[in-house]
Amino acid sequence: MAQVGIIMGSNSDLPIMQGAIDILKQFNIAVEIDIVSAHRTPEKLFNYAKNAHKNGLQVIIAGAGGAAHLPGMVASLSPLPVIGVPVKSRNSIDGWDSVLSILQMPNGVPVATVALDGATNAGILAAQIIACSDSTTLNKIIAYKESLKEKVNQAAKDLKK
Amino acid sequence: MAQVGIIMGSNSDLPIMQGAIDILKQFNIAVEIDIVSAHRTPEKLFNYAKNAHKNGLQVIIAGAGGAAHLPGMVASLSPLPVIGVPVKSRNSIDGWDSVLSILQMPNGVPVATVALDGATNAGILAAQIIACSDSTTLNKIIAYKESLKEKVNQAAKDLKK
Amino acid sequence: MAQVGIIMGSNSDLPIMQGAIDILKQFNIAVEIDIVSAHRTPEKLFNYAKNAHKNGLQVIIAGAGGAAHLPGMVASLSPLPVIGVPVKSRNSIDGWDSVLSILQMPNGVPVATVALDGATNAGILAAQIIACSDSTTLNKIIAYKESLKEKVNQAAKDLKK
Amino acid sequence: MAQVGIIMGSNSDLPIMQGAIDILKQFNIAVEIDIVSAHRTPEKLFNYAKNAHKNGLQVIIAGAGGAAHLPGMVASLSPLPVIGVPVKSRNSIDGWDSVLSILQMPNGVPVATVALDGATNAGILAAQIIACSDSTTLNKIIAYKESLKEKVNQAAKDLKK
Amino acid sequence: MAQVGIIMGSNSDLPIMQGAIDILKQFNIAVEIDIVSAHRTPEKLFNYAKNAHKNGLQVIIAGAGGAAHLPGMVASLSPLPVIGVPVKSRNSIDGWDSVLSILQMPNGVPVATVALDGATNAGILAAQIIACSDSTTLNKIIAYKESLKEKVNQAAKDLKK
Amino acid sequence: MAQVGIIMGSNSDLPIMQGAIDILKQFNIAVEIDIVSAHRTPEKLFNYAKNAHKNGLQVIIAGAGGAAHLPGMVASLSPLPVIGVPVKSRNSIDGWDSVLSILQMPNGVPVATVALDGATNAGILAAQIIACSDSTTLNKIIAYKESLKEKVNQAAKDLKK
Amino acid sequence: MAQVGIIMGSNSDLPIMQGAIDILKQFNIAVEIDIVSAHRTPEKLFNYAKNAHKNGLQVIIAGAGGAAHLPGMVASLSPLPVIGVPVKSRNSIDGWDSVLSILQMPNGVPVATVALDGATNAGILAAQIIACSDSTTLNKIIAYKESLKEKVNQAAKDLKK
Amino acid sequence: MAQVGIIMGSNSDLPIMQGAIDILKQFNIAVEIDIVSAHRTPEKLFNYAKNAHKNGLQVIIAGAGGAAHLPGMVASLSPLPVIGVPVKSRNSIDGWDSVLSILQMPNGVPVATVALDGATNAGILAAQIIACSDSTTLNKIIAYKESLKEKVNQAAKDLKK
Repeated sequence: MAQVGIIMGSNSDLPIMQGAIDILKQFNIAVEIDIVSAHRTPEKLFNYAKNAHKNGLQVIIAGAGGAAHLPGMVASLSPLPVIGVPVKSRNSIDGWDSVLSILQMPNGVPVATVALDGATNAGILAAQIIACSDSTTLNKIIAYKESLKEKVNQAAKDLKK
Repeated sequence: MAQVGIIMGSNSDLPIMQGAIDILKQFNIAVEIDIVSAHRTPEKLFNYAKNAHKNGLQVIIAGAGGAAHLPGMVASLSPLPVIGVPVKSRNSIDGWDSVLSILQMPNGVPVATVALDGATNAGILAAQIIACSDSTTLNKIIAYKESLKEKVNQAAKDLKK
Repeated sequence: MAQVGIIMGSNSDLPIMQGAIDILKQFNIAVEIDIVSAHRTPEKLFNYAKNAHKNGLQVIIAGAGGAAHLPGMVASLSPLPVIGVPVKSRNSIDGWDSVLSILQMPNGVPVATVALDGATNAGILAAQIIACSDSTTLNKIIAYKESLKEKVNQAAKDLKK
Repeated sequence: MAQVGIIMGSNSDLPIMQGAIDILKQFNIAVEIDIVSAHRTPEKLFNYAKNAHKNGLQVIIAGAGGAAHLPGMVASLSPLPVIGVPVKSRNSIDGWDSVLSILQMPNGVPVATVALDGATNAGILAAQIIACSDSTTLNKIIAYKESLKEKVNQAAKDLKK
Repeated sequence: MAQVGIIMGSNSDLPIMQGAIDILKQFNIAVEIDIVSAHRTPEKLFNYAKNAHKNGLQVIIAGAGGAAHLPGMVASLSPLPVIGVPVKSRNSIDGWDSVLSILQMPNGVPVATVALDGATNAGILAAQIIACSDSTTLNKIIAYKESLKEKVNQAAKDLKK
Repeated sequence: MAQVGIIMGSNSDLPIMQGAIDILKQFNIAVEIDIVSAHRTPEKLFNYAKNAHKNGLQVIIAGAGGAAHLPGMVASLSPLPVIGVPVKSRNSIDGWDSVLSILQMPNGVPVATVALDGATNAGILAAQIIACSDSTTLNKIIAYKESLKEKVNQAAKDLKK
Repeated sequence: MAQVGIIMGSNSDLPIMQGAIDILKQFNIAVEIDIVSAHRTPEKLFNYAKNAHKNGLQVIIAGAGGAAHLPGMVASLSPLPVIGVPVKSRNSIDGWDSVLSILQMPNGVPVATVALDGATNAGILAAQIIACSDSTTLNKIIAYKESLKEKVNQAAKDLKK
Repeated sequence: MAQVGIIMGSNSDLPIMQGAIDILKQFNIAVEIDIVSAHRTPEKLFNYAKNAHKNGLQVIIAGAGGAAHLPGMVASLSPLPVIGVPVKSRNSIDGWDSVLSILQMPNGVPVATVALDGATNAGILAAQIIACSDSTTLNKIIAYKESLKEKVNQAAKDLKK
């Protein structure tokens, strides 16, 4: 059973959202993926968001661009933590619309927003949320952070050569 | 029976949205007013938008601020023309979030966006839409435009004194 | 007789504005197309806008970029609803000038603004306006919205394979 | 006979535009003032701009805010140099709309844009233009620039006390 | 033992950050509060972040303004989910610096960013994270969302009177 | 003897500034061209600006990018009208720095700013300034404006074919 | 003999620039203060900047707002390190013009830019530069940084009470 | 022994940061280079910054992009002057995040910020700081500034041919 649901407004968002899928696989966290468009499939959005916690999901990651309403509407309908990925889609004004329409949620309905096109970080954040009650995952995150250090240290060594 | 539905995300938007109510009254166009929050009352939003055209509404005006999803979600669910009013609410970043999250809709689902806090113009635009098939209203709009000229001309006379 | 007039400030705007032409053809709505520059052919602009409603047009779509004055000046001169398409032209500062000089109209003279380069949505909005008094077109819009869903559902199926 | 025409879109722009009137008086340059709204009195705009050079004006100063079309439309219709003053009006988004919709004119139709609310500079620029063929005014400008120095020098003295 | 640590860069951030404290009290979630400045007390920041998960904290909420480095540095040092609150402090450029320096974290080190001054939402998000493994809290969140609806419905009733 | 001086901060600005050279040649107005860098050749800037009106120049066009100080410093030192061309140079932040550092001059020292990369318009504006006391040039400007119309009309004809 | 020269474009900048004066006094570093306007007293600017290092100054702090050319022009003329303070003056567009016209200097002529209205930091930076060859000042800076910690620790204690 | 330490958050910043290395070599100032990531190697950052002045460094240049915390955190931990280079990295929102998260430091902890991607200027600024107590370097800077003039003068000559 999937722990994290990853949805996106359009299949054109997939190359960006793949970052979340890949990192969660690396953490051995089961994901399910779907395309749910707030503007083109609002009923599907409703059903998805209303039932996500009943279906065993613990976290939802939603990516969208432009006037991006998907993360906020899912947050409106679900009690689960929702992570929003602003996607710099083709029609976006340099990404500002994607960022602001996901970030600036009103009091009562938060969306945990990550950087523009930051799907990898969305996946890590989902893992950190799951790790709150799962020490195995917590240890994987600690190990992952160590691996980041090693890459930087290796790059520093290469630079000095 | 109301021709224009005016909805807003919060009662704090009323002072701005009153501009639409007042101008439509001036054009003798029947309005109905409601508070519908995309983020706090999503089911009400669904019912409202799904049934608006069945209830005889011809145009919907929706005002909201911040990550403003109300106009876009109504446009997603209703075949009627939807006019969006970006409101510079208390938590908005200078109004940019309100503007971009209403204006930058994806292909397929337009929102007719007016200026920041431009509810009066939203009302005039609704009247112009109704006037497409209603010559009485068209004449009122023509007369209204004449009255704008007179005010400017009067101000110009006062200035020259 | 054309129901929707589509004008643009320059022939360089045509690739964008084609989106409005195509979608209106799909809805079987008659359009007429012209190049009218607020800054280079102001008299033509005046004649066009003054006579549009007398010539049987019901909606005007105007696209322009940079300091885009075409939509606003048409709205100044015509009682018809005017839809403005901000075009991200070559000299535009990332589209911000196009958007703000169309959107931020003063009280009394609305322009129904769509997204940057959002000509397809301008066409759909024009169809929705016509559908206010034309149930055939309304049904086409309802069917069009259904077709959007199907595309998303198909993409979702493809993704899960 | 006036040499400089000063126009503004609304009487609410007068407190700002007074800066241009005052400085031109100081230079003994005759001005005429009017309210001309591109959006509410387009015919007056046409007549004004078409005839300005025939009426003996040498320079036009036009101030407006929001989606400010007055300076650009006057520049479209008149062969005279047009100075645009972006006014940070009540509904402006921090002045950005005023600035961009005046500054970003297409090739062929320049507007000499000054700073946001910079009406005093518009007046000085008009005087500099007139001074191109008028050595009395040129000398006044040279003297004016000297007076600016003296004020700074005096302030520097006061500071050091 | 506290489940959520709430830290802020300066006591001037307290009026904003109080929103997180209040809502978490309402959800009966134990919090501990501290002032930790990334720029003035970097060693305290290190100790706090390195030990947070060992001290039993499950989530950290960090609020800061301007070049806001507190949330990102805590995220760098702790495996826990970190929620960042961009504060529109006195020296901030309209809040843009606070938002961008918290949101735009590099791959590997996410910060769950909420709206400008959105500390209440930070508290709700922390509760949602805890609710992933705590059905009592999940039910409180579901009830809280219901209470939001009731307030909107009451406001709608008042409006119609 | 040159009537218009065209200067630029770097030879990399030449492709843009060529627009001003070309249009002034078309108007038969004599120009002189130079590279003057406010930041690298400040003494040359001083000499140039101090002596421009003594050398018979009537207007100065100055183009620069980034933190563009050339137009403003020339305006500081010369009584002549100075036209500033913000150039979107390689290191510019999308042109915003070029625009704001030329446009936002303090009271007392105007720069007539044209659009980003708008050198052609700078040339036309210079011609319009010269035309204030030169009816031959005025007639050329009137004819030029007619030619703009013809191009648009031809493009409109081509479109309708 | 002064080690740090503090100049500003206008006496209206003094309340902000006082921050630099105060902190340098606290570090026992001798300062001299002057008003030097790039746009109104360009000759004074030239003399000041050309002679600063001959007069024994080691660092120059320059504050200005709007199209702020003072820091960059001083940097053009002096071999000394120049610290620029963008001042959010009355006519500034939210401070963006001040920041960009100081920060975005071309290659070859750096200005060490501090935060908007960040004169205190300009003073500290000047002290740090002097401390490069002055261990007494270095120790004062180390002590100053310790005092910042104590203030935060005291505020943290007060908060917990 | 190195006088200037140059660090960067990632090896992808090297092509930009090379500008600082090259110019400092040209001034015969010894540099040491390292990769230090605030977010991935926070302990290395601490050690580096805490010991820089003890290791004989006089100035630190730190380059980073996005939510760039490296320069500010080094400034927090070291008494040395820190020069920040905002890098327009791949994920940056047009460089605004890099600029604001480095520039907008709170009172007490300055970062001497240079232009976006302005590493060459960072190197020159470091040389100017060292030149405060080193007349050989001061003379090199004076000569360097002369060489800038010669290049402009040569380009001006080429242009006139």
